Amino acid sequence: MSTPASSYTVGDYLLDRLAELGVTEIFGVPGDFNLEFLDHVEDHATVRWVGNANELNAGYAADGYGRLRGMAALVTTFGVGELSAANAIAGSYAEHVPVVHVVGAPSTDAQVARRAVHHTLGDGDFERFLRMSREITCAQANLTPATATREIDRVLSEVREQKLPGYLLLATDVARFPADPPTAPLVRYGGGTSPGALALFERAARDLVADEQVTVLADLLVHRLDAVPQLQALLSADTVPFATLVWGKSLLDESSPDYLGIYAGAASEPSVRAAVEDAPVLVTAGVQFTDMVSGFFSQKLDQARVIDVGPHQSTVAGTVYAPLDMHTALETLARIVEERGTRTPAAASPAGPPSPATDAGDPDRPLDQQTLWNMLAGALTPGNIVLADQGTSFYGMAGHRLPSGVTFIGQPLWASIGYTLPAALGAGLSDRDRRPVLLIGDGAAQLTIQELGTFSREGLAPVVVVVDNDGYTVERAIHGENARYNDIVRWKWENVPDTLGVEGHISRTVRTVGELADALAESAAHTDAMAYITAVVPKMDVPPLLSDLARSASEANRG
Amino acid sequence: MSTPASSYTVGDYLLDRLAELGVTEIFGVPGDFNLEFLDHVEDHATVRWVGNANELNAGYAADGYGRLRGMAALVTTFGVGELSAANAIAGSYAEHVPVVHVVGAPSTDAQVARRAVHHTLGDGDFERFLRMSREITCAQANLTPATATREIDRVLSEVREQKLPGYLLLATDVARFPADPPTAPLVRYGGGTSPGALALFERAARDLVADEQVTVLADLLVHRLDAVPQLQALLSADTVPFATLVWGKSLLDESSPDYLGIYAGAASEPSVRAAVEDAPVLVTAGVQFTDMVSGFFSQKLDQARVIDVGPHQSTVAGTVYAPLDMHTALETLARIVEERGTRTPAAASPAGPPSPATDAGDPDRPLDQQTLWNMLAGALTPGNIVLADQGTSFYGMAGHRLPSGVTFIGQPLWASIGYTLPAALGAGLSDRDRRPVLLIGDGAAQLTIQELGTFSREGLAPVVVVVDNDGYTVERAIHGENARYNDIVRWKWENVPDTLGVEGHISRTVRTVGELADALAESAAHTDAMAYITAVVPKMDVPPLLSDLARSASEANRG
Repeated sequence: MSTPASSYTVGDYLLDRLAELGVTEIFGVPGDFNLEFLDHVEDHATVRWVGNANELNAGYAADGYGRLRGMAALVTTFGVGELSAANAIAGSYAEHVPVVHVVGAPSTDAQVARRAVHHTLGDGDFERFLRMSREITCAQANLTPATATREIDRVLSEVREQKLPGYLLLATDVARFPADPPTAPLVRYGGGTSPGALALFERAARDLVADEQVTVLADLLVHRLDAVPQLQALLSADTVPFATLVWGKSLLDESSPDYLGIYAGAASEPSVRAAVEDAPVLVTAGVQFTDMVSGFFSQKLDQARVIDVGPHQSTVAGTVYAPLDMHTALETLARIVEERGTRTPAAASPAGPPSPATDAGDPDRPLDQQTLWNMLAGALTPGNIVLADQGTSFYGMAGHRLPSGVTFIGQPLWASIGYTLPAALGAGLSDRDRRPVLLIGDGAAQLTIQELGTFSREGLAPVVVVVDNDGYTVERAIHGENARYNDIVRWKWENVPDTLGVEGHISRTVRTVGELADALAESAAHTDAMAYITAVVPKMDVPPLLSDLARSASEANRG
Repeated sequence: MSTPASSYTVGDYLLDRLAELGVTEIFGVPGDFNLEFLDHVEDHATVRWVGNANELNAGYAADGYGRLRGMAALVTTFGVGELSAANAIAGSYAEHVPVVHVVGAPSTDAQVARRAVHHTLGDGDFERFLRMSREITCAQANLTPATATREIDRVLSEVREQKLPGYLLLATDVARFPADPPTAPLVRYGGGTSPGALALFERAARDLVADEQVTVLADLLVHRLDAVPQLQALLSADTVPFATLVWGKSLLDESSPDYLGIYAGAASEPSVRAAVEDAPVLVTAGVQFTDMVSGFFSQKLDQARVIDVGPHQSTVAGTVYAPLDMHTALETLARIVEERGTRTPAAASPAGPPSPATDAGDPDRPLDQQTLWNMLAGALTPGNIVLADQGTSFYGMAGHRLPSGVTFIGQPLWASIGYTLPAALGAGLSDRDRRPVLLIGDGAAQLTIQELGTFSREGLAPVVVVVDNDGYTVERAIHGENARYNDIVRWKWENVPDTLGVEGHISRTVRTVGELADALAESAAHTDAMAYITAVVPKMDVPPLLSDLARSASEANRG
């Protein structure tokens, strides 16, 4: 295909649309089918290239970025690159993160001629990987010169609306094909709420709420749909005790006196469980019960007393009202509570989880998991982005009350170990004023360790805590406590950052309470470089929440 | 689902079938949906578990193992694990490697109830990843108690026959379901050759061959279909000059006086090109022309003088004879050449590529790529398994004549950088009497480095050469020579093995001819531990074969 000369291309159009959606960093790995497009990334006024050590890590970084920025992009090359990122993209789907996956493809000529070119299966089928992507993205396109800008708009709109990943196949020649810049912003979808459904919902909700105290159980989707302000308005309309699922942890201000704690069905603290399950009226907002956040589906909510607010529909005592946007439903509930003009006394709210102890006692005491998480929670400061990997780190930190302004990131549904290390890079780049705090086990860190040097190349100064407990402790808790398959190769963790290109860092190995306290103090004092702490704890020391869940997981696997 | 008590299970049946096919090592990463099956692996009489640092690496290791052993197996967990291995599985497909991918899945109960369990997208669809696997495997099954043994047999048979990967979804409860052990070996397919087609092929081949000298161009599929002895019989039947494509490098004995060298279309050495393209009669055996092995489809073969022997059909001067097995076709050709009773004088064969120089000259001369590959080729000894990553390493080593008994492994079609590091682990475990020699660039090594410690845990003592040229030189050669996106984070390569758990190794950084010579001598003297050499070469120093191909790749991407 011969291409007219032009300065503005399809590739530039895509970059301008991503920029419009808030993207200023693009993650990925170069490959010969995307190299020329990367020239356009490098030349773009506001978008910048962040190269990663491999594609899985790039996908994780984009996910971490997208959770905070509300949109992210990833560029890989055909076949080898895109498939390496598949786990990360599927994770973004499971966890409702908007990520645009741009895949550089062989030229249209090669595709039409069905050539056996490298990075293909050699059978002339160039849409195999696009078909695979249909299972893990909400919208896909194989761009052509004739439809590229329309298709880019369609896929990006779906990603923004659905908060799920999308896939764009961008052949080398299509990327450089001439295009006109966007002339208007990407159109937003309308019509999310039916006035009739809203009126019926309002009447039913008003009848149910009456003069009862309202309790809120909130989860992740409130954050993903940008409805946190509307939820906060509901919490402010009266004394409203609230809990979140662990998936939605840090969605709301945990320093509030109305904060109950984490609800996890039968695995909840008894006070939280009672407050949620016995609430006269419970508003569940953006809640999705999955095995690990519900104590294996042990939630007990009486639907007759529940108002459930979902992304596009709400339910009052079991009756569905739709279409009805989450924002509108929450605003309506806030108005109902506000307008009744009474105020529930604050004393009705339980005390919630204790704040972490600042004094861990005897400095010579060997470190254990409970002390570790307590001290780490106590060292957090407003603005921190805490990423806790799906093992002892996640469940160890989950129950602690976080300071106001701290964001907590985990992956309790997709649960891919190693995710948080590159995700911390993406999260840190999404807001350079906030320090990432990465909590990860040794087994998990081995999966994605090559990204460590990228933090310092990008000028980020995270706190990294590697929990050294000699293998896959989360798996040991479920099955095979002493099985060889749960062992890992022993690394010299303390030397890892120096070897893998982290510059100007501090690295400490801590085995006692006092050593950890010193390392945390040093980390707090050096905010301009990576503070890397190897925390050695006993092999079979497991946080209580995890041991409960592990028992349930083991039973579920018995079938 | 309630399960009767039994000592022999579906999982055991699968392991026995894999053992029957020659598998003694299984690669993978534990996850809670495969843990109990791993107990059975650990308990098996002849099959052994080899845990990997992540699933992509496990897939690559299985591929390297399968290339030599003729069958390999990989165990991952649902979603997160299997998708991380997708790139490796697709690579096994592209490169015709038989690998069985066993994926531990949530229990049948969870699947039937469509539960939102971890490692799923939370939508109750448990076959999304199985559907994805259809694009990159030749056979798939979601095992059930009623069909498990039949389906295992079907998938394993297809993997063995087609030399392509297969996929088995193994729910926790199905793995432990009672089964009876196999009572007979896995049935082989018959009927691969039609007697009529064979007779017609023989007559046509005899007419074409007549009294002409026969030249052979062989490729990968002869190896994959285990037809090397039949091809060797043809080479012995007369003086038969032979070349291979680079994909089939080391398939035949390169120390033979009849060895012409590597044929790569217009990118061939002129003498090889002439000998192949001007051959009076050319037998192409198991040949598949892809872009990187054919000088971008620049092969010029006169079909009127070609006998093409494919896996299940052969062609004589353009006429197709099928079904006809490769083995039978090659045996027939050998008999035709043998029976004519004349012998072509040996002088008709050209000299082939020179053997590598053993003396590289001035020891203080800085190392460059040409000297590096020449010296490395000279240091190889019979039995070595050379794995050359798809960059300067592959193209640098491709043109050298290898000693008899050396196996060369690369990935010129799938071309996934980083592949060779875990593949060297698998290849080394497939035959402990052969020393792996891994040649990999710094950019590529960063993708899969976490597997390094597994070599020493498994008692392997490879030679590892990391080519430190400051980034993705293969990409620089194609596009973006000085672009920032082709840079990588600088690591302290010399410290990598010590930090990442390699015990008892030697690590040397070499910058001159003399330093490399010393390091190679030391490696040869210490065959009981990893010899790790960081070879520093200029950033834009590219082997000649690669610079030709890179120019063609760049033009192809212009569309």
